[in-house]
Amino acid sequence: MARLVMKFGGSSVADLDHIRNVARHVEREVKAGHEVAVVVSAMAGTTNRLVEWCRQAAALHDAREYDAVVASGEQVTSGLLAIVLEDMGVSARSWQGWQLPIVTDNVHGAARILEVNGAELIKRFKERNREVAVISGFQGIHKETGRITTLGRGGSDTSAVAVAAAIHAERCDIYTDVDGVYTTDPDIEERARRLDKIAYEEMLEMASLGAKVLQVRSVELAMQRRVRIFVRSSFDRPEDIDPHGVPPGTLICDEEEIVENQVVTGIAFSKDEAQISIRRLADKPGVAAALFGPLADAHINVDMIVQNISADGLTDITFTVPIVDCERAKDVLKKVKAKVGFSAIEGAADVVKVSIIGVGMRSHAGVAATAFKALAERGINIRAISTSEIKISILIDAAFTELAVRTLHSVYGLDR
Amino acid sequence: MARLVMKFGGSSVADLDHIRNVARHVEREVKAGHEVAVVVSAMAGTTNRLVEWCRQAAALHDAREYDAVVASGEQVTSGLLAIVLEDMGVSARSWQGWQLPIVTDNVHGAARILEVNGAELIKRFKERNREVAVISGFQGIHKETGRITTLGRGGSDTSAVAVAAAIHAERCDIYTDVDGVYTTDPDIEERARRLDKIAYEEMLEMASLGAKVLQVRSVELAMQRRVRIFVRSSFDRPEDIDPHGVPPGTLICDEEEIVENQVVTGIAFSKDEAQISIRRLADKPGVAAALFGPLADAHINVDMIVQNISADGLTDITFTVPIVDCERAKDVLKKVKAKVGFSAIEGAADVVKVSIIGVGMRSHAGVAATAFKALAERGINIRAISTSEIKISILIDAAFTELAVRTLHSVYGLDR
Repeated sequence: MARLVMKFGGSSVADLDHIRNVARHVEREVKAGHEVAVVVSAMAGTTNRLVEWCRQAAALHDAREYDAVVASGEQVTSGLLAIVLEDMGVSARSWQGWQLPIVTDNVHGAARILEVNGAELIKRFKERNREVAVISGFQGIHKETGRITTLGRGGSDTSAVAVAAAIHAERCDIYTDVDGVYTTDPDIEERARRLDKIAYEEMLEMASLGAKVLQVRSVELAMQRRVRIFVRSSFDRPEDIDPHGVPPGTLICDEEEIVENQVVTGIAFSKDEAQISIRRLADKPGVAAALFGPLADAHINVDMIVQNISADGLTDITFTVPIVDCERAKDVLKKVKAKVGFSAIEGAADVVKVSIIGVGMRSHAGVAATAFKALAERGINIRAISTSEIKISILIDAAFTELAVRTLHSVYGLDR
Repeated sequence: MARLVMKFGGSSVADLDHIRNVARHVEREVKAGHEVAVVVSAMAGTTNRLVEWCRQAAALHDAREYDAVVASGEQVTSGLLAIVLEDMGVSARSWQGWQLPIVTDNVHGAARILEVNGAELIKRFKERNREVAVISGFQGIHKETGRITTLGRGGSDTSAVAVAAAIHAERCDIYTDVDGVYTTDPDIEERARRLDKIAYEEMLEMASLGAKVLQVRSVELAMQRRVRIFVRSSFDRPEDIDPHGVPPGTLICDEEEIVENQVVTGIAFSKDEAQISIRRLADKPGVAAALFGPLADAHINVDMIVQNISADGLTDITFTVPIVDCERAKDVLKKVKAKVGFSAIEGAADVVKVSIIGVGMRSHAGVAATAFKALAERGINIRAISTSEIKISILIDAAFTELAVRTLHSVYGLDR
């Protein structure tokens, strides 16, 4: 007997046939003797429709009212799933965020979960013959005001992890449209392998760098609260799953649970950044602050920063910003041009950030050198580099994306 | 300055254009200096879709889950209306049934309102510059279980009256697709007049006899709590309404508020009943009980009962039942035929119950005689009669419906 959280997204509950399939997955776990809490999203398309109505109602709208409108989507799904489960003879009841409650802060539209009442669910597992809790994801309540909050897009992943922590679940199963986390994007490298396990820190880098399997916040929360997440496919038919076997999927867990650490776990890439170069800047104390201060004031996130060696007391600085902020960043910099003193601002959007990720890097030297050498042999020019303890990110021309990803995937022995 | 409740049904909030129109009505009242609570239904079609999903999920479903699913409809409308109002510069906030709260019993799907927290709304009128309360109709919460309840079809009228009572509103304006209550159905008698005022008791008879303007329960509650209901058109453009004039509509109020009482206020009719006749029944004590007892046990409502004068110790009994229960009633009676002893059961569904309604009847003799004479002159045969203090109901062949309604409308001086 284990205690499980099962999370299903919008496409898994798109209509009653899909909801019935979800119910069979739940039934399978209950029959295997587990205590189950299910977290569901709104039916596919519903949230978009509700968001669009809010936008039509007023371009600028009260986020508290937006939350009340949008949270209605999950309410429908949790009620319907509870009905289907009861009809199958599985004891179940629905829980809205305000009912359990799932307490959040009051940042409406992007609230953070503060507390989940897991005790009530555990009590019901015991007293009501393992009553399945069907919980509306994505939503909560702000206790002081008593108003409905939502967690922002993809928030149901975070709801699931928070519920798993609150009920001390052995695992939080996230059912998605992929069957796990891969060493890189299989659309680019067909030899990409599904990872059996990946450490939280690695998944965080993978997620924030473009492997869009899970919401970043849900992984952060899982790492903090030590919740084991299992990413698995929602397309598997419940009747095909061996209740005693290990299903296909990827476990996101503590580093220590991974016995055979690879040096490199995966190759991620992101096309969401643009490069900006500042030419012939005076190389003196305070110029970096004079450039990056105004960008920070404009809430523009600066990532990779490279400063060339000075010549004639002048230098070049290159850095990346999110592609959506590129034009705004250039405008900010134009305004400080006279004050800071430099010759030109150059921007390039056709760049890609390729990242090599692996907790094993901490104890292995030469990982970066291997990458630089392999890319050089393919004639790929490196525009900028940034590193952390467990990743190396390299900025290159977007045209070389596929070649670079395949080259790195191969050189670190990740090919199947 | 007055305090008002404004209630809008599903067709008045069918889409964002309609919701904007509703918002302009609300703005008009706020600008006139009133304190306003708005009660809204789900957008037209929404409730039907949600009910259908529940039915598809399981033929027999938990009414508590049904309520959670179905109540989501009003949540969307109240949030959207609050957004539109705020956008127009009218201070507003939405309230779900559980938030205010609107406390009900736990008869899920057909709950009764026990209590509405009006004090919170009154406080906000005062402290927040007449903040408009936008309340989801049709729904509430059962306090002990903390679960969402719904009031049953048409429940938003009842929500509106309950809110009006709780905030001591001067009036509860029900915006509908008709501009008031008429002396009879204008589709049958074009000379039907809109009533300026009608007493609660009269409206109850009108409503339950087929004038489907308001839910019967809402009128009962209004009578109990002395809430003045004003039925008016939702099609009137807000900008055409004179804020200082008396708008077209019908006030449902206490008898004493109606200065010039007519003897007869209106003519209603209902085709929802069927006639059953029992032939050649032994005319002895206990036979009526032997017939009507089993019908009551089967929860079949028997209305008009006529017993002929006995001949040869045998008699005929004629009565009406709801048309939907007619076949079931005949089955019940067949089973007791041998025991009770009678020759035949005859049923007729092509009958109509025409009713003459007016509180003035209490102090006027001869009202019934006038009707019988007028119908006889037209050659309309009376099948059964039942009377109360303020109404006379006559069962006739359905073919004579229009003729009877027009005849009675005219003979009691109701023609325009």
